[in-house]
Amino acid sequence: MTPKIAEFLQREQPQTPYLVLDVDVVVDRYTRMRQLMPEVAIYYAVKANPAAPVLRRLAAAGACFDAASMPEIDAVLAASATADRISFGNTVKKRHAIAEAFGLGVRDYAFDSLQELEKIAAVAPGARVACRIAVENHGARWPLSRKFGVDPAHAPELLRRAPDLGLVPSGVSFHVGSQQTNPFIWHAAISHAGAIFEAVAQANIALDLVNLGGGFPVTYRDQAVPPPEAIADTIMTAVDSTFGNSRPRLMAEPGRALVADAGVIRSEVVLVSTRDPETPERWVYLDIGRFGGLAEAEGEAIQYEIHTSRAGDLDLAVVAGPTCDSHDVLYEKQRYHLPVDLAEGDLVDIHAAGAYTTTYSSIGFNGFPPLAEYYV
Amino acid sequence: MTPKIAEFLQREQPQTPYLVLDVDVVVDRYTRMRQLMPEVAIYYAVKANPAAPVLRRLAAAGACFDAASMPEIDAVLAASATADRISFGNTVKKRHAIAEAFGLGVRDYAFDSLQELEKIAAVAPGARVACRIAVENHGARWPLSRKFGVDPAHAPELLRRAPDLGLVPSGVSFHVGSQQTNPFIWHAAISHAGAIFEAVAQANIALDLVNLGGGFPVTYRDQAVPPPEAIADTIMTAVDSTFGNSRPRLMAEPGRALVADAGVIRSEVVLVSTRDPETPERWVYLDIGRFGGLAEAEGEAIQYEIHTSRAGDLDLAVVAGPTCDSHDVLYEKQRYHLPVDLAEGDLVDIHAAGAYTTTYSSIGFNGFPPLAEYYV
Repeated sequence: MTPKIAEFLQREQPQTPYLVLDVDVVVDRYTRMRQLMPEVAIYYAVKANPAAPVLRRLAAAGACFDAASMPEIDAVLAASATADRISFGNTVKKRHAIAEAFGLGVRDYAFDSLQELEKIAAVAPGARVACRIAVENHGARWPLSRKFGVDPAHAPELLRRAPDLGLVPSGVSFHVGSQQTNPFIWHAAISHAGAIFEAVAQANIALDLVNLGGGFPVTYRDQAVPPPEAIADTIMTAVDSTFGNSRPRLMAEPGRALVADAGVIRSEVVLVSTRDPETPERWVYLDIGRFGGLAEAEGEAIQYEIHTSRAGDLDLAVVAGPTCDSHDVLYEKQRYHLPVDLAEGDLVDIHAAGAYTTTYSSIGFNGFPPLAEYYV
Repeated sequence: MTPKIAEFLQREQPQTPYLVLDVDVVVDRYTRMRQLMPEVAIYYAVKANPAAPVLRRLAAAGACFDAASMPEIDAVLAASATADRISFGNTVKKRHAIAEAFGLGVRDYAFDSLQELEKIAAVAPGARVACRIAVENHGARWPLSRKFGVDPAHAPELLRRAPDLGLVPSGVSFHVGSQQTNPFIWHAAISHAGAIFEAVAQANIALDLVNLGGGFPVTYRDQAVPPPEAIADTIMTAVDSTFGNSRPRLMAEPGRALVADAGVIRSEVVLVSTRDPETPERWVYLDIGRFGGLAEAEGEAIQYEIHTSRAGDLDLAVVAGPTCDSHDVLYEKQRYHLPVDLAEGDLVDIHAAGAYTTTYSSIGFNGFPPLAEYYV
């Protein structure tokens, strides 16, 4: 909770629920990451929070951008970043979206299949393409499925096809899983990249880019995360031991790590109920839930810190959202210690809520409007 | 696929993805349900699809409405239904929403805790209140959690409190779980209601309403669902055996059963990829996924029928959405048989998609706009 956010909450008091985000924190996190890894170009993962104030501040600070779609590319350009600072990182792109991005000057594209490579070749001749590989991601709180990434063993073959198709094979990308708490997981991924560089060098193709992806963690409830310094050290040590003196260009795609800490969601308690007098289990229903912005609470994966203004004793409670959907329960297996005197109408603050909340909100689930957002 | 939908798809061809819904089908399903259970007042569950054309047609046909929030109540009133045809069925309501609804003339409210009962009493004096009980819901594809409903054993005690608080205890409500495929599950629930009627009668309180809830199933992929006639028979038999000659007023809250069949989502194949040459597993990526409207594919619970225009041989494929989110996979454990020649750019139609899609769409996940919707 920064002074600017506290001042906004005190002064404005809009109807809950809403996000307040201090854009200074975003710039601070960006600057710190640049300082910790000066060799790494920072491509902000726009999907984490595409709000214009965030993009404008990052663009002014010199950041690059990882975009998932044409609307995200448009938003970045509108924030005064040039197209050469954009990577179109989604490996699943509509043909006309690639063509449109290419027409706007975007030159960097990700792929993980021959089919996508051919699509890019058809409408973006001469583009730089990075092959996304699937890597280990255990340790991640929002782990990746098998949806993205080719087996590292098959990456050289795909990259070797790129020149034949009129494309420039730039390198290798991966993602170790969002909210990754084990920094050593990057080591294995970087080793894979090194092996792929060597394999394609035998075909006289010189790759020059390793995209370290995202996954840089932030602190949520009860979760020990390694400090950014430890992650940076681990990554740069792995790069040095893998590539020695021929270090490639490096880029990373942090999203959560830049914006999560910057935002607080203010919510209101709609109901505190103990339905069964024999086994008094307390249910706290908030006016925000999984479909109103807290999509990452699915499976109780991301456990936000919840702060109240009550100072009384704590006791366990299930926390749920306000809709009639029975899936709209936030924390039931892992309950929260909340004040025993927490009551209907109390305001609660959900911390580190600046990432993956606003745009993940449904447009009108159960009639509730999307999460309101304010930038200070 | 009705002629009106087919004609729209042929004529308009907007950019995918989008829902087209034939409102005549909604009226047809409503009329059929009225004919099958003339004793049951039909309260359409607005959350299933709150589009104005749907509400207007149902209002004109004489339907009543189950609303989850004030915006849904506003939408129903705007569709020319009067407030006495609205039940505020969410058991978790903001105090000011209850007051506002009461001011507009809404008289029927659900509750499942003393705390909610007291809240209703404070701002809606004299309102009719139905106690929601938790009942068995195995057999449901989108089953309910422990989020809603009091243990039937504790319902009489809560209902007996209502008159002391200045409220009118109207009866008992329950929900057997969405997309319920076992009609006999209603039997147990109705028996519980009967026992509660008897228990409170000993305190000289005469309940007169049983709310049968929703859960009426529709046909998705590979799922045998009982015909509506069988469900209606089971329900009415259970009502007769429980209540005999003193049959209470009955209401039901179908959502899916009225609108699902009326809608088709047209989507485009963005990519078909086989990333691993050794274990050729086909991934079909559509331009709609879990965050663009198919939220009910979470856990592969609702498996929509997917139709293509290809006539070739079929083979298994994983089906996924277009975003960079690794959770945005639709069907992986239970793959789909799709034409082997299905290709990027092909249009596919997702059938029975009129329920729980449009408003469940995120407002801008990964930059993608909410699901477009057309009513014919």
